[in-house]
Amino acid sequence: MINTEILEKSKDLVDRSFTGALGTINEEGFPQIKAMLKTQANGLKEFWFCSNTSSKRATQIRKNSNACLYFCDEKTYEGLMLSGQAELSYDDGKRNEFWKEDMRIYYPQGSSDPDFVLIHFTAVKGNYYHGLQNTDFTVEA
Amino acid sequence: MINTEILEKSKDLVDRSFTGALGTINEEGFPQIKAMLKTQANGLKEFWFCSNTSSKRATQIRKNSNACLYFCDEKTYEGLMLSGQAELSYDDGKRNEFWKEDMRIYYPQGSSDPDFVLIHFTAVKGNYYHGLQNTDFTVEA
Repeated sequence: MINTEILEKSKDLVDRSFTGALGTINEEGFPQIKAMLKTQANGLKEFWFCSNTSSKRATQIRKNSNACLYFCDEKTYEGLMLSGQAELSYDDGKRNEFWKEDMRIYYPQGSSDPDFVLIHFTAVKGNYYHGLQNTDFTVEA
Repeated sequence: MINTEILEKSKDLVDRSFTGALGTINEEGFPQIKAMLKTQANGLKEFWFCSNTSSKRATQIRKNSNACLYFCDEKTYEGLMLSGQAELSYDDGKRNEFWKEDMRIYYPQGSSDPDFVLIHFTAVKGNYYHGLQNTDFTVEA
């Protein structure tokens, strides 16, 4: 049974978050964390982030797609961790959709720059906590 | 060669952070993140957090000590990720040192409560970024 209130609170936390902390595993088997600007979120299931082909993050995801995405609000003691898979995408439709002209300082060739890669995170499980209470749930499509 | 300015900026970021995001790896091989209240930090090398023996985090650390600790400031676009080892500690000196009476709601038996466990994180490597620049460094004792 899905607790609707937990899902609503989780979505609200994602909505008001500017960044999410992406967790990946590096080649030496260490967890790694980086705050990523939330480019697009479709509910709690699917997230898109802009990255660089040459980045550590992209290299790690290519070798190990196990990932998590974490949002928290220090003021309200709320947190949400989504576990799932991260994959790299060069989808031109998505790269065009997310393109803004001020991104040219990072990607000189524009939206088709080979260094402009998207990280596509798909959540499978979620854990939401508020204070001392925490709840595991499955992330439906 | 250690860049003193990078170390100073990293320490300043830690000092003004109320929490750090602890990264661990669970039994299924997925990275996991949780914001932890920073109980004690000795420079960039050693960190202590209060946790529960029965928690997911403690269980994960017992099986895989590879960990990271991440601090970031969304306003200044600064971030620091420390990679190293996490271990559980029941050291009575430390548990007494960190004990506050209002923690009794979590640990009814006080500082020697068997559920009161400390997470001791020791950093080996660091990466500090500010805007587009990022620097790797070794964390000295």
